[in-house]
Amino acid sequence: MTINDLPRGFKSGTAAAAFKKAGRDDLGLIVSEFPCVVSGLFTQNRFQAAPVQICREILRNSGPVRAVLANSGQANACTGEQGLENCRATQRMVAERINLVPEEILPLSTGVIGPQLPMDRWRAAVPKLVESLGSRDAEAFTRAFMTTDAFPKFAARGLDLSAGHTRLTVMAKGAGMICPNMATMLCVVLTDAMVEQNSWRSMFKRAADKTFNRVSVDGDTSTNDTILGLANGASVPIKTEADLTLFEESLTEILGSVAYMLVKDGEGAAKVIHITVRGACSDADAALAARSVGHSQLVKTAIYGGDANWGRIVTAIGYSGADFEPAEVCLSLCGIERFVKGRPVDDDQEEILSDLLKARDIHVDISLGSGPGSYVFLASDLGHEYVSLNADYRS
Amino acid sequence: MTINDLPRGFKSGTAAAAFKKAGRDDLGLIVSEFPCVVSGLFTQNRFQAAPVQICREILRNSGPVRAVLANSGQANACTGEQGLENCRATQRMVAERINLVPEEILPLSTGVIGPQLPMDRWRAAVPKLVESLGSRDAEAFTRAFMTTDAFPKFAARGLDLSAGHTRLTVMAKGAGMICPNMATMLCVVLTDAMVEQNSWRSMFKRAADKTFNRVSVDGDTSTNDTILGLANGASVPIKTEADLTLFEESLTEILGSVAYMLVKDGEGAAKVIHITVRGACSDADAALAARSVGHSQLVKTAIYGGDANWGRIVTAIGYSGADFEPAEVCLSLCGIERFVKGRPVDDDQEEILSDLLKARDIHVDISLGSGPGSYVFLASDLGHEYVSLNADYRS
Repeated sequence: MTINDLPRGFKSGTAAAAFKKAGRDDLGLIVSEFPCVVSGLFTQNRFQAAPVQICREILRNSGPVRAVLANSGQANACTGEQGLENCRATQRMVAERINLVPEEILPLSTGVIGPQLPMDRWRAAVPKLVESLGSRDAEAFTRAFMTTDAFPKFAARGLDLSAGHTRLTVMAKGAGMICPNMATMLCVVLTDAMVEQNSWRSMFKRAADKTFNRVSVDGDTSTNDTILGLANGASVPIKTEADLTLFEESLTEILGSVAYMLVKDGEGAAKVIHITVRGACSDADAALAARSVGHSQLVKTAIYGGDANWGRIVTAIGYSGADFEPAEVCLSLCGIERFVKGRPVDDDQEEILSDLLKARDIHVDISLGSGPGSYVFLASDLGHEYVSLNADYRS
Repeated sequence: MTINDLPRGFKSGTAAAAFKKAGRDDLGLIVSEFPCVVSGLFTQNRFQAAPVQICREILRNSGPVRAVLANSGQANACTGEQGLENCRATQRMVAERINLVPEEILPLSTGVIGPQLPMDRWRAAVPKLVESLGSRDAEAFTRAFMTTDAFPKFAARGLDLSAGHTRLTVMAKGAGMICPNMATMLCVVLTDAMVEQNSWRSMFKRAADKTFNRVSVDGDTSTNDTILGLANGASVPIKTEADLTLFEESLTEILGSVAYMLVKDGEGAAKVIHITVRGACSDADAALAARSVGHSQLVKTAIYGGDANWGRIVTAIGYSGADFEPAEVCLSLCGIERFVKGRPVDDDQEEILSDLLKARDIHVDISLGSGPGSYVFLASDLGHEYVSLNADYRS
């Protein structure tokens, strides 16, 4: 088995519909031989794209799911009733050809916000899409829904549990809303494990919360962000405490590695900032502090410039809303103490730090000395490339 | 009376202490002949600089206040117990020379976060500072506490009320934390009106909330932000409803004009974005939406680049946390409708918008169609100059 093979019982197909640009596959389909138990997390943005609304409806009904249908080019967001109708029509187009009911197909879209789906191109491409089923792999599906990604983000793991062998595949796209009108983050997780629905939904939410929900490129949450997890039961049942624990650990690990790819990518980002907060009153407070630091324009530009600027990090912690004693706060940058018990460290480490700040991965470790709460957050820097990419006229 | 003359009964002095750079005045003093009624608003940052802590203490005791003592060069923030001691020592230095008690002097500092105040330079400069009292004006005091400001921000108004003539002077500094380790916003408001303390504090808070609290350059709130308002009663009593109303309107207007200067300034900002939200469920919701738009990296870079990108603005409204029906939302950019009742406007206004976006003042008008709440917020754009300024090594 290679990284490219999907878990047992899943097959994929892709086609080139020329939704936005010709000459690339922009339509992808995953079909499971067996009905899947599904978990999904969706954008909290109040403007929910049509496919997001429909996915949420399907998940609420908790019926069996057999497929995922993804397109790039148009996000089908801010498209009103017609957008919903079009989305359902695409589900029907595929369902009738592969002998499913439309509600067994989860739709995903990414691309320009506003325009309606070009239905004629859908109608022309779906036959080719269905025909290709079984002849594509994980990378091909990932490439079909990429937009501005510099590289396809996918990973696979094989696990040997007491029950036997099972596989996980993760396919994602996104790097923050780094280009005009592009929707952000889509992720499809497949496994051939057999997991009871509530267990799957709980562990999936926990794993996604520790990983995909803890990255930011620019703080914007799009109209289309979606993470789906499908377990089709084609291999072994995950039932024992030990197996469930190991399985969840692997799921968290593989999602974490792909979430890291999201931050690392982006022509606009040169660095990945790893922000760890410990000693907060609660995990929620730790999150406030970590996110505040990771979203601060001043912190991100300083790191872009290789500036070991503890003052800005401390200031961001200060207005985060987290509760703490200023005189207890400690901060290390690239492993070097910069701020201890509320006072700056007066030393001669500027040159060493200057070198350490040239690395791609920058570690910011914060201790609030106030409790047991902790949180890890990944952010990117902010530099000229980001501005250039985002200040250009829309194409 | 000119813009430079302080209200009746106030005089100012300045001196060059070389706190950071030689050759400029960096120490300023305002003294009132009569005790003042005082209102103050302070940063919510949990790391409160020593002068902020001491000002708050003075205000809590509600005793008479006679002076404001301001320095640039060092923020006296993250300086611990010694920082507080030094601040009190500077109050004493000045108090003993002008026959006041230290608690009658409100301290303000702006500059580098971390280093202690250079007390030897304070001791050398205070005699010259006191000697200069009465020979300086509003502009001189403003220049003494400027750091990275491109120009001194001050304004004055004369009002004819039923009770007689009264004056307001506003002196401010700041343009967001646009340079490494610089504290942000300081503002001193003086009036010779006689106003009862509770009235003064209520109206001052209302006026500051509608103006200074509604601007953002980069979303960061420093360790030192302070707005002080001193009313010394040297002219006329403001008592009637009509006079109080007119007086508050003028106060709000003059604070608004200086707040606008804060956003307009900053070598890193080319545009002032005026975001107006109407039709929210509440003013608080309107604020959420407006601030979300004004803090969005994607919106700010688009406007920097002259891109009429409604999608990013809509997305920022969507994740703001404000409650509304997506199908009711309307948006105009530079007065041109871009989004109506949840759907984009399909027209040919790109060229016109492209021209309109070259202006310095960009108007973003949002209607949520959900209630009576409204809010106005000023933000700046985000471009290469900002990145260059903030990514440089600390000097």
